[in-house]
Amino acid sequence: MPELALLQQVVERVRPLLGQGKVADYIPALASVDAGKLGIAITTVEGVTLGAGDYLEPFSIQSISKVFSLTLALTLYEESEIWARVGKEPSGHSFNSLVQVELESGIPRNPFINAGALVIADLLQARLGAPKHRMLEVVRKLCGNERISYDRLVADSEYQFSARNAAIAYLMKSFGNFHGDVNTVLQSYFHYCSLQMSCADLSRAMIYLANRGVSLTGERLITQVQTRQMNALLATSGLYDGAGEFAYRVGMPGKSGVGGGIIAVIPGDMAICVWSPELDKQGNSLAGTAMLEHLSQELGRCIF
Amino acid sequence: MPELALLQQVVERVRPLLGQGKVADYIPALASVDAGKLGIAITTVEGVTLGAGDYLEPFSIQSISKVFSLTLALTLYEESEIWARVGKEPSGHSFNSLVQVELESGIPRNPFINAGALVIADLLQARLGAPKHRMLEVVRKLCGNERISYDRLVADSEYQFSARNAAIAYLMKSFGNFHGDVNTVLQSYFHYCSLQMSCADLSRAMIYLANRGVSLTGERLITQVQTRQMNALLATSGLYDGAGEFAYRVGMPGKSGVGGGIIAVIPGDMAICVWSPELDKQGNSLAGTAMLEHLSQELGRCIF
Amino acid sequence: MPELALLQQVVERVRPLLGQGKVADYIPALASVDAGKLGIAITTVEGVTLGAGDYLEPFSIQSISKVFSLTLALTLYEESEIWARVGKEPSGHSFNSLVQVELESGIPRNPFINAGALVIADLLQARLGAPKHRMLEVVRKLCGNERISYDRLVADSEYQFSARNAAIAYLMKSFGNFHGDVNTVLQSYFHYCSLQMSCADLSRAMIYLANRGVSLTGERLITQVQTRQMNALLATSGLYDGAGEFAYRVGMPGKSGVGGGIIAVIPGDMAICVWSPELDKQGNSLAGTAMLEHLSQELGRCIF
Amino acid sequence: MPELALLQQVVERVRPLLGQGKVADYIPALASVDAGKLGIAITTVEGVTLGAGDYLEPFSIQSISKVFSLTLALTLYEESEIWARVGKEPSGHSFNSLVQVELESGIPRNPFINAGALVIADLLQARLGAPKHRMLEVVRKLCGNERISYDRLVADSEYQFSARNAAIAYLMKSFGNFHGDVNTVLQSYFHYCSLQMSCADLSRAMIYLANRGVSLTGERLITQVQTRQMNALLATSGLYDGAGEFAYRVGMPGKSGVGGGIIAVIPGDMAICVWSPELDKQGNSLAGTAMLEHLSQELGRCIF
Repeated sequence: MPELALLQQVVERVRPLLGQGKVADYIPALASVDAGKLGIAITTVEGVTLGAGDYLEPFSIQSISKVFSLTLALTLYEESEIWARVGKEPSGHSFNSLVQVELESGIPRNPFINAGALVIADLLQARLGAPKHRMLEVVRKLCGNERISYDRLVADSEYQFSARNAAIAYLMKSFGNFHGDVNTVLQSYFHYCSLQMSCADLSRAMIYLANRGVSLTGERLITQVQTRQMNALLATSGLYDGAGEFAYRVGMPGKSGVGGGIIAVIPGDMAICVWSPELDKQGNSLAGTAMLEHLSQELGRCIF
Repeated sequence: MPELALLQQVVERVRPLLGQGKVADYIPALASVDAGKLGIAITTVEGVTLGAGDYLEPFSIQSISKVFSLTLALTLYEESEIWARVGKEPSGHSFNSLVQVELESGIPRNPFINAGALVIADLLQARLGAPKHRMLEVVRKLCGNERISYDRLVADSEYQFSARNAAIAYLMKSFGNFHGDVNTVLQSYFHYCSLQMSCADLSRAMIYLANRGVSLTGERLITQVQTRQMNALLATSGLYDGAGEFAYRVGMPGKSGVGGGIIAVIPGDMAICVWSPELDKQGNSLAGTAMLEHLSQELGRCIF
Repeated sequence: MPELALLQQVVERVRPLLGQGKVADYIPALASVDAGKLGIAITTVEGVTLGAGDYLEPFSIQSISKVFSLTLALTLYEESEIWARVGKEPSGHSFNSLVQVELESGIPRNPFINAGALVIADLLQARLGAPKHRMLEVVRKLCGNERISYDRLVADSEYQFSARNAAIAYLMKSFGNFHGDVNTVLQSYFHYCSLQMSCADLSRAMIYLANRGVSLTGERLITQVQTRQMNALLATSGLYDGAGEFAYRVGMPGKSGVGGGIIAVIPGDMAICVWSPELDKQGNSLAGTAMLEHLSQELGRCIF
Repeated sequence: MPELALLQQVVERVRPLLGQGKVADYIPALASVDAGKLGIAITTVEGVTLGAGDYLEPFSIQSISKVFSLTLALTLYEESEIWARVGKEPSGHSFNSLVQVELESGIPRNPFINAGALVIADLLQARLGAPKHRMLEVVRKLCGNERISYDRLVADSEYQFSARNAAIAYLMKSFGNFHGDVNTVLQSYFHYCSLQMSCADLSRAMIYLANRGVSLTGERLITQVQTRQMNALLATSGLYDGAGEFAYRVGMPGKSGVGGGIIAVIPGDMAICVWSPELDKQGNSLAGTAMLEHLSQELGRCIF
């Protein structure tokens, strides 16, 4: 088990990188975050959580929520129902591109780009009476923190600037691959993205990915095989158009969000969450990636 | 260590799939292969090789050679020299597409699609007096088999139908990312692809990927970090536009060739090679993928 | 002036082509039209209208309305305001593609593809209190037929299947090139498309394009230079991805609609409208194009 | 007939535009041209040639030669043989793009982009013993100037930087739409482009396009219908990705070259050639387009 000192050292080592990235500013609510935040937390399969820096401070998890959405969908649908509507391949395009969706007849490449996550949100909407409420319930239970909540300011702000995501949803609808009301599903989708969680929360919530599908409280969320598959999808498609570089440098399945968070998994061992709001050109946390890279090197642990 | 019986069982289990794929027929020399061939071999880091089916029969390794090319390039160049000319991301397009190369100013997405491998071949040509000879030497030594050779019929046949690859090379040249004579480099490239090796040969040759960069004879080819990085690239980009599905089903870094071979790696443990000439829609061996999937399940071993 | 006999002969000559095309069926209201309809009408700059076949029967003018929209916009805006938001080039893509709009930052290629016409509809919405009412007024006056009206069944049906156009509008909104409420503008847009007019009506309404901008009643709609420019845009972009073939065969500026109508212009001479509901692969009236081709040959008149 | 004074006035009116464009510099031989050159010449169907400015000075006609190539091909092949291998539609992409060629299975969009002109050059190569010699013969006769010749410096220079065109040719070859030896055809192609002609020469040579297919010497090159069709193709595809804007501003069929020349046609009336080496963003002569625009306005003549 890594010692606390290692985590502290990792945080300090990347601090000089602050200033080299760019905080997401497409909505005011995200642009106002303190760019100097740096945090890391790990949770081991034994249930121990350690952290350094701003690891207890909640931030906007944004696209990291796509992992929770897919997990929830896996509990509600047959796998074939899901994979008939979304692919499993890296996209080769930016996260919010419509080109691929048009060229490939409305089927998004994977569940971790916006188009794919919107299909998943559409699936959740169709089976759940109150999807926003249910998601909150699931996430709170996963990390054992009842205070986790949506940031309505962020959700509303996203909704106000939602034209691109609306375009994607309508395009899929025109191909018959989006069934619900676009506005309703977008509302849910933006709420999922607006979840406020700390590195500690996220590393605890994600432990099922390191623990064969079993959560901290010992509950099975998804099967062992599904966990393996989820990690495989995260490894190939979890970091937008930077998945190859991330695998190359960090070597772990992971998922990033434009809020500056990244979760990563060492199967059988631990779940990790880093946070630093400044993003690189691919939209992934710049210092966050560096923290994971250092951790991987120091632990001598990665999946490759 | 898996027993021989397991490998035999894996071969028999996929035999019913024969007939569902399609042998590559873009050159006569490949089209004439016996579609009913099925082989699997593993080599452990301890140096033990086991096999079943047609695992001793040489076949055309085709794009699997791209792993050897990149490895050789890593021994001749600084990493920065290589990655300035080729990317590390999945392509999201078919293996021989020019669209991405044009849109991204002549920089191929990764070294395992044709465009990227041609850049690597161009790099080898620039540093090696006799690259075809040298490649043969390296590969023979890696698997300890002096009889390994090029299939000149295949190489010539490829060269005769080389218009698409010539187009890719000239397109990169127009962007300043291809320096050598196109015909000369294509000749070398097609020779690498025409290597005739058996599953046993390939699983032995690739063991360095499972063994931190050290070959069967105890020689270090590349560093431990480079080995990890190579596996990361294979996991995200090794199976053309089917890398996500392969990770999902098999969960190992791998590389396929249109000759029907696939190599895969369980880091720290073993290198595997399967062979079955019929391909699926993405151009990867159909029964070969299934063999790896069964093996992964039976061993309970994958990287995720 | 062409004699009536010529028009009748043109109609009979193309009758054998019936059955070779395909009636638009993306909405039920259009799919139910009688595929055997065939009509042609011409109106000369002197104000004489002649017709043959079903030239008095109203049909759904669909995209032909894009000519009226642009004309109306030219009366409400400075030209620079219009051309800052929509281009003048042929698109090289199908009429409802989003690819080009995404790649070119939300600026549609021309006002006659869906994206461009939606921008024009957005412009009309911003300046007109009651754009649907105003459009009806303009068109009725242009052809001197007070009975012209919208087909609300068609408009509603289009709106019900409007996902693709909504996607285009939202995509442009995400680039800041669509200002109004998407649903409101779509409602107006689909109403314009649902105008019911006969060949006679349309040839009369369009005479200003042959008459330097002056309508049948002697009113100036647009300047002589604007008329010339409108004809130029129709010649290069009026027939979707079939403009080159249409210029090659017919040699006149023109605009087609999926209802099977095509209007064409011989500047200084006459406006023509043909109608036959079956479409070719580019979505243009198959027999309609043939009628125009024969007429052009018989008259020995085209712009080239 | 326009008076000489008008042409002189047109030249002076655009002189202030010098300095706003950019001389083609992709080969040294073109980059060294005097950017201050300005010329215009017209030839009427009666055979009178008038000019102003540097209208007697030969320049590199470059892509204007694509008009001669297609004309020559029309005399050697059935039309169906030509149009089976090249389309008639505007491309919607830049003149040397491979994207469209790949997406549309090796069939270029029209004969005036590079890919299309290479197919035409391939056709000429297949039917003519000495295509370069024959082209020279044809062009010399068309304008009655025996001193017209290739600029071998330019041709060689083009060939040296021919990677992009080689890529296009090989790509088409891979689709079976290029039959000859790539290098040989490229050599011919670059020679055609290197023709040195003055505005006077070009306006005389192109008169058949204004004169129903009949040259200055009274010889019929192509039929009246083919002439009309050629003008139609020039109007929709003659100015690369600026055909719409050119039709809008100038309103004549035309063809431009990166040497700064543009030819234009008023059917039944005259052929025009302008020259000014500085190009706009689409690669068309900036001041040349302006000269044609002024001439069109002053004459009150265009095809629309």
